[in-house]
Amino acid sequence: MKKEHMDRIDNAIKAVAAKKHINHFYFVACGGSQAFMMPARYIMDMETEIPSSIYTSNEFVHTEPKALGPDSVVITCSHSGNTPETVKATELARQKGALTIALSNLVDSPLWLAAEYPLHYDWGKEADASDLNKGVLYTLLFKILNVLSPCEKYEKAVKAVDHLGECINKAKELYASKLSQWAKKYKREPLIYTMSSGATYGEAYSFAICLLMEMQWVHSSCIHSGEYFHGPFEVTDFDVPFIIIKGRGATRPLDERAYAFCSKYSEKIMLVDENDFDMTGIDEEVRPYFGSLLSGAVLRSFADYLAYERGHELSVRRYMWKMEY
Amino acid sequence: MKKEHMDRIDNAIKAVAAKKHINHFYFVACGGSQAFMMPARYIMDMETEIPSSIYTSNEFVHTEPKALGPDSVVITCSHSGNTPETVKATELARQKGALTIALSNLVDSPLWLAAEYPLHYDWGKEADASDLNKGVLYTLLFKILNVLSPCEKYEKAVKAVDHLGECINKAKELYASKLSQWAKKYKREPLIYTMSSGATYGEAYSFAICLLMEMQWVHSSCIHSGEYFHGPFEVTDFDVPFIIIKGRGATRPLDERAYAFCSKYSEKIMLVDENDFDMTGIDEEVRPYFGSLLSGAVLRSFADYLAYERGHELSVRRYMWKMEY
Repeated sequence: MKKEHMDRIDNAIKAVAAKKHINHFYFVACGGSQAFMMPARYIMDMETEIPSSIYTSNEFVHTEPKALGPDSVVITCSHSGNTPETVKATELARQKGALTIALSNLVDSPLWLAAEYPLHYDWGKEADASDLNKGVLYTLLFKILNVLSPCEKYEKAVKAVDHLGECINKAKELYASKLSQWAKKYKREPLIYTMSSGATYGEAYSFAICLLMEMQWVHSSCIHSGEYFHGPFEVTDFDVPFIIIKGRGATRPLDERAYAFCSKYSEKIMLVDENDFDMTGIDEEVRPYFGSLLSGAVLRSFADYLAYERGHELSVRRYMWKMEY
Repeated sequence: MKKEHMDRIDNAIKAVAAKKHINHFYFVACGGSQAFMMPARYIMDMETEIPSSIYTSNEFVHTEPKALGPDSVVITCSHSGNTPETVKATELARQKGALTIALSNLVDSPLWLAAEYPLHYDWGKEADASDLNKGVLYTLLFKILNVLSPCEKYEKAVKAVDHLGECINKAKELYASKLSQWAKKYKREPLIYTMSSGATYGEAYSFAICLLMEMQWVHSSCIHSGEYFHGPFEVTDFDVPFIIIKGRGATRPLDERAYAFCSKYSEKIMLVDENDFDMTGIDEEVRPYFGSLLSGAVLRSFADYLAYERGHELSVRRYMWKMEY
C-alpha cells in the first residue's frame, strides 16, 4: 500500500485509539458503496462486542439513530465523493460529535470536506489492489480491531492486503474460461438471481443491484442463502438462472445447502466457490474474511464478458447522472 | 388483548426489567417471521441507545455474534414453532446465558420449549388483531421500551394495539376496489418489484419473498426506497410493475422520492399510501410506527385477489414441506 494511504489510515486509527469509549460503529453509504461495506459490519460483529450497524445513507439521515453521538465512529463511503445522501450522513454524524471517517476516490470532494478523517483510495486497472477501496477498508478495519484488542490475527490481516492483487489475478485466471462460457450461455436471460451469505453477501448484493440492474438492465434480486428456503426457493425452476457464491467463512454451510437444492431444480447455475481460490500469501486464519474480495473480482470480470456478449457497455445509463432525481 | 397473552408478555417484561444491564437486543427469525420483526429493530433504533440487530436464524447460529451473552435479550419467532434454524438460534442464545423470548402460534412446539419466555399468539380470521403476531410483538416491544425509559408515548402505543383491528378493517375497505382492479390488471406479470423503507420495509420484503415468490411463483425483489436511485432504478421501464408503499414515518421522504421518479417511467405502479388510512384510536404520536401494520394487511388482501385471478391458491407449494431440504 502507498505511504500516503497508510499515513491517512494511521491518522484515523490514532483518533479511534484516543477515544475512551466507543458505543457504536456505523457504516453508512448508498448502493455499491453500501454493499462494499457490508463485510465490514459482518467482520466487526464476529470480532468485537462493540455494536456495528450498516445503513443506506438516507435512512440514516432521516431516522437519526438514537445511539449516534460523541462516542460513535461513523464510516462513510462515496466513490465520487459527491453522493448527496452520504455527504449529509457524514455532516449529521459530525454535528452529533461522532468521529467521522470517509472513503472516497476524490480528494477535496464534498464528502472529503465533510469528514474529519477522509481516506483516499486509487481506482483503475493499473492500481495495486491494496490501494483500491477494498484494500483501504480492510486495512482500516483490521487496524481498528488491533487497537481495540491487539492480536496477531489482525496483524496478519493487515499484511494480507498486500497479497490481494496476486490472489485476485489468479482467481480471475482460474475462472476466465467458465466466465466467458456463462456470458455466452446466459446473455439473453431477462432475470438472474444472485445468492450468498456472511462476508460475501455484499458481493452478491452489489452484483445484483449495480452490475445486473444498473449496468445491464437485467432484472435481479439478491437472496440470502439462509432466507432461500423460507420463501424464495419456490421460484426455482429448470430455466431460472442463479449466480451462487459459496463463501469460505462461518456461513459456508448455508451457501452449500442452498446450492445443493438449487442445482437440483435449476439447469442454469453459475457457481463461484471461494474454496477454489489460491490464497497464498494470505494467512489461513484470515482467509474466511478475504475470500469475498476474490469472489467480487471474479464477478466483476463476469460483468465484462456479459456486457460484451450483450453489446451493452457497462457505462450505459438511461437515468443515472442524466437528469434530476 | 386476551389476558393469557398479556400475562405471558408481562412475565417476560419482568425478566427484562430485572436485568441490571442489557448490551444488545437480537431479533432472529427466518423469512416471513424475520420480515415481521424488521420494524422492531427499526423502532428500537430510533427509541433507545441499546443496540439492536436482526438476523436470519442460520446466519446468527453460524456466526455467533461476539456480543451475544448473559446481558443480551434475544427475541425469536416461528409461526409453526418448528423452524429448525430458529429453534437452534434460541438454544444457542440460551446456552450463552441470554434472556430468550420466543413468539409462536404453537404452544409446546420445539421453539416454545427452547425459549425461557415463550409467547403465544392467535391466528386466523376470527382472531382480534391485538391477539395476532403483530399485536403481541408491538405490545412486548413498547412495554420493553417503557421499562427502559418510562414515558406516556409507550403507554399510548400499548393502548393503540387494541384499536388495530378496526383500523385494519377500514384500511382494507378503503383499498378493496383498487386491489381487485390491480389483481386483474397485473395477473399475467412474471415479475413484480416491491419498494418501501423504514418501519414498512419489512412489509415490502415479506410481500416479495413470501406472497409473490413463495405463494404465487412470481419473480420479485424488495428494493429499499433509499437504494433505488443507486442502481436498481435503471431497470425501471414503462412495462415494469412496482408495488410502492409510502410510509408515515421518518423515511417517508425516501418513499415519496422513489414514487415520484418511478411513476414517471413505469405505467404499472400500485401505490399504498399510509397517509390514506383512518387511524382513529391510535395516538398521533405513535402512528408512524403503526402505519406499516395497516399496509401489511392491505397487501395481504391484495395477495388474495391476485391468487384468485391467477387461479393459483396461496397454499400451493412445490418444494416447501414436501421434501427434505
